[in-house]
Amino acid sequence: MANNEDQFKKVIGHAKEYGYIFGSSEIYDGLSAVYDYAQNGVELKKNIREYWWQSMVYMHQNIVGIDAAILMHPKTWKASGHVDAFSDPLIDNKDSKKRYRADVLVEDYAEKLEQKAQKEIKKAAKRFGEAFNEEEFVTTNPRVVGYLSKKAEILSRLARSLESEDLADVKLLIEELEIACPLSGSRNWTDVKQFNLMFGTKLGASAETATDLYLRPETAQGIFVNFLNVQKTGRMKIPFGIAQTGKAFRNEIVARQFIFRMREFEQMEMQFFVRPGEEMKWYDHWKEYRLNWHLSLGMGKENYRFHDHEKLAHYANAASDIEFNFPFGFKELEGIHSRTDFDLKAHEEHSGKKLKFYDPELGENYTPYVVETSIGLDRMFLAVLSHSLMDEKLEDGSSRTVLKLPSVLAPVKAAVFPLVKKDGLPELAQEIIEDLQWDHNVFYDEKDAVGKRYRRQDAAGTPFCITVDHQTLEDKTVTIRHRDTMEQERVAIADLNAIISKDVSMKAWLSKK
Amino acid sequence: MANNEDQFKKVIGHAKEYGYIFGSSEIYDGLSAVYDYAQNGVELKKNIREYWWQSMVYMHQNIVGIDAAILMHPKTWKASGHVDAFSDPLIDNKDSKKRYRADVLVEDYAEKLEQKAQKEIKKAAKRFGEAFNEEEFVTTNPRVVGYLSKKAEILSRLARSLESEDLADVKLLIEELEIACPLSGSRNWTDVKQFNLMFGTKLGASAETATDLYLRPETAQGIFVNFLNVQKTGRMKIPFGIAQTGKAFRNEIVARQFIFRMREFEQMEMQFFVRPGEEMKWYDHWKEYRLNWHLSLGMGKENYRFHDHEKLAHYANAASDIEFNFPFGFKELEGIHSRTDFDLKAHEEHSGKKLKFYDPELGENYTPYVVETSIGLDRMFLAVLSHSLMDEKLEDGSSRTVLKLPSVLAPVKAAVFPLVKKDGLPELAQEIIEDLQWDHNVFYDEKDAVGKRYRRQDAAGTPFCITVDHQTLEDKTVTIRHRDTMEQERVAIADLNAIISKDVSMKAWLSKK
Repeated sequence: MANNEDQFKKVIGHAKEYGYIFGSSEIYDGLSAVYDYAQNGVELKKNIREYWWQSMVYMHQNIVGIDAAILMHPKTWKASGHVDAFSDPLIDNKDSKKRYRADVLVEDYAEKLEQKAQKEIKKAAKRFGEAFNEEEFVTTNPRVVGYLSKKAEILSRLARSLESEDLADVKLLIEELEIACPLSGSRNWTDVKQFNLMFGTKLGASAETATDLYLRPETAQGIFVNFLNVQKTGRMKIPFGIAQTGKAFRNEIVARQFIFRMREFEQMEMQFFVRPGEEMKWYDHWKEYRLNWHLSLGMGKENYRFHDHEKLAHYANAASDIEFNFPFGFKELEGIHSRTDFDLKAHEEHSGKKLKFYDPELGENYTPYVVETSIGLDRMFLAVLSHSLMDEKLEDGSSRTVLKLPSVLAPVKAAVFPLVKKDGLPELAQEIIEDLQWDHNVFYDEKDAVGKRYRRQDAAGTPFCITVDHQTLEDKTVTIRHRDTMEQERVAIADLNAIISKDVSMKAWLSKK
Repeated sequence: MANNEDQFKKVIGHAKEYGYIFGSSEIYDGLSAVYDYAQNGVELKKNIREYWWQSMVYMHQNIVGIDAAILMHPKTWKASGHVDAFSDPLIDNKDSKKRYRADVLVEDYAEKLEQKAQKEIKKAAKRFGEAFNEEEFVTTNPRVVGYLSKKAEILSRLARSLESEDLADVKLLIEELEIACPLSGSRNWTDVKQFNLMFGTKLGASAETATDLYLRPETAQGIFVNFLNVQKTGRMKIPFGIAQTGKAFRNEIVARQFIFRMREFEQMEMQFFVRPGEEMKWYDHWKEYRLNWHLSLGMGKENYRFHDHEKLAHYANAASDIEFNFPFGFKELEGIHSRTDFDLKAHEEHSGKKLKFYDPELGENYTPYVVETSIGLDRMFLAVLSHSLMDEKLEDGSSRTVLKLPSVLAPVKAAVFPLVKKDGLPELAQEIIEDLQWDHNVFYDEKDAVGKRYRRQDAAGTPFCITVDHQTLEDKTVTIRHRDTMEQERVAIADLNAIISKDVSMKAWLSKK
């Protein structure tokens, strides 16, 4: 655990040092849970987005994209349920004036009981050695039984109270458990209140005519309200999908873990419209397809797992997460949800417009069912970055920091170096760049010894380094060095584009099993 | 003029019918001045963005990109001047409760005087025929002289009042001119007040700790606050640039002309940091470079012109617009501004942090000067779309609607048709698609006669149609048809990718003079 925390800190530091991510408005000491993508970050983000778009849109003749605005008619969020139900239960401490998620306070308390139980188990295991029977100990040791049954009791009462919206009981629970404010130590709490997570704003200048708007908390609704327009103008036949990438905003109270949970984030979503009754077939299909997309990047099968939801959201009849092994453990990276006809029906009801599909094969009109795949672009970025960063021991006893990004996603594909800053080598390097730049993002560096330049590109994640030397003047060959193996070969300038293209092409990567 | 209005209406209708642009939340009767990009629109927008990025970032070793968040620390907008000075003078009619831009009311009045003068001129021209001397008439006819001098007087008084922030005089002017509310006909006006155009929102849940935030009204400031981080981690040396594309928001009172002036829009900006004193050289350089970028698309040199600003914004020492000939006349498409050191100095002052560059050649520290190129992505989209849409008379007397998009920007590069829906032709068409889809966005269509399919693709702007027929089964050749010339040739399937790539490649287009 300590190791993983170290790794996470290292990732955050590296992201800043190598131009991947800066805190937002850092010169003003930052804006909490908002981040900016820097010169390498913007390219990695672009490449992830394009890798997804290629796989979801260009590889599917029955999926098209759209780009809906962030601002939408406010009735959208009434219909989707966000105005009434997209909220967290919050409680204020009257002394510290600090606000908390009431459910998180209770969950943290329950977690401490779990830790106490684990401590007892470890102690006993040490005492009894090989004779220790954990299963028996957990069910018979009075202290452990006490901790665990108390924990279960608290969590089930919390779940019941939230379910029935009995916020007074959530407060009572906090008081009974004598939970204190971590900041002030005080138990002087306000009532628990629901707080909506949507950012609000106002459209129009006149107080009397101003409209209350929201920054969209998810991109999905932009697809649903456009469903019929896309179907008709695109002459789409069910089953078909609409894909979208774009920003969404949530006024999270507890935003943390770097770019994992931000207040402003980007989603990559695809809503797939199917015949009612066929949704489970497509749900299984998309679970498998999306996992394979992740696996194509070669970041280790063991780092992914499905987490099927037992408790379903009000709109879903099946839901599963693809979890990734982040430095802070397995967490949700992508969700695949069978959303039924909930959203389209809700929009029909609130708009008075029909959102039906006439199925020529069945000869009938129906409201399609929807299977959604929804992935956080920023989370995907963090998964790739944290998995790729490593310190490597080299054969000569030295070590290097290397960012082994899948080359298809690497911001810069090749760095071009003149061995020395004279004899026409810089000019030759520029010529190579001018040739490669149409197909690849390339980078020029002439400073310091070549070995040092290699190390900088290793740490920045560049898959290829190309060095122009005096031999190049004679035979038009260069040295190409591979980031991961550190191997160097002599190749013709004329072959460079093909060598790089072959390695970084989407076709090669997406065809991997 | 009437013709141009017709053309504009045709563009708007076509944009919806062929899946380029839908009104936002149309099922809820739309959200004023907000639009969604549909299945073809999203691709055209992506392609414009990428054409810009290729030219500005990948073709320049001294320009890098970033992607800053929309939400920024609020001090950013204090420093930039937007909190205090980014506003419009508004006036309410007390009877209709309708709100207007006070300056627009006055300008509309002045415009009517101009129209009256023009009417007199036309009448006289008709009466006098060839003997008519317009120049003399305009300076001697008492009625025309009256209209025009009144117009000049009004506009110069308005400019003076706004300049000195004398809003009481703007109101007085409206009263003196007896301007009535177009809706109610009433002259019962409130005072004129400044209204800030930034959308506000609140971060955080507690009333006591909530922070007032703004949706950024421009992307430029995201570059300025990151200037030093990018320069240091990217080891950039002056002159260098930072490029960015992204959303910005303005609570416009009078938003109109389709996607030309929207409340939510996307900018493509590049800030170029230079030595103080060298800014005019770079200003001239970027004016020329940006105009050439536009000309590379082949939409007619005569449709662009520079408009150098006489009145400069508080931060600028030179500014010019590239105007495009939209259906509603020449209007700003892009701005090139010499912003001096205003922004960096303002952020130094408000943040207390140094934003200086140590110039190793000069051996001194200085605050760089900035030359900006700023283009509206949505405006560029409208320019391309409206220029490309045309009705063509054909030799056989029939006509066709065709969208002659520059092929490098076209959403779909090729449509693939099986001649008939049997004999294995659809399968063969799919094989061709599976081969092309890695390099191009391709589209499959098997419905209706081939001629009808051609027309649909003409109207959608697809540069190539590929038809698979029975001969294809024998010799692996297909018919390729060119959108603009309607010419058809027989080519080998194996050559298709190269034929398309050659025509749509960025290299070919960006190298055009």
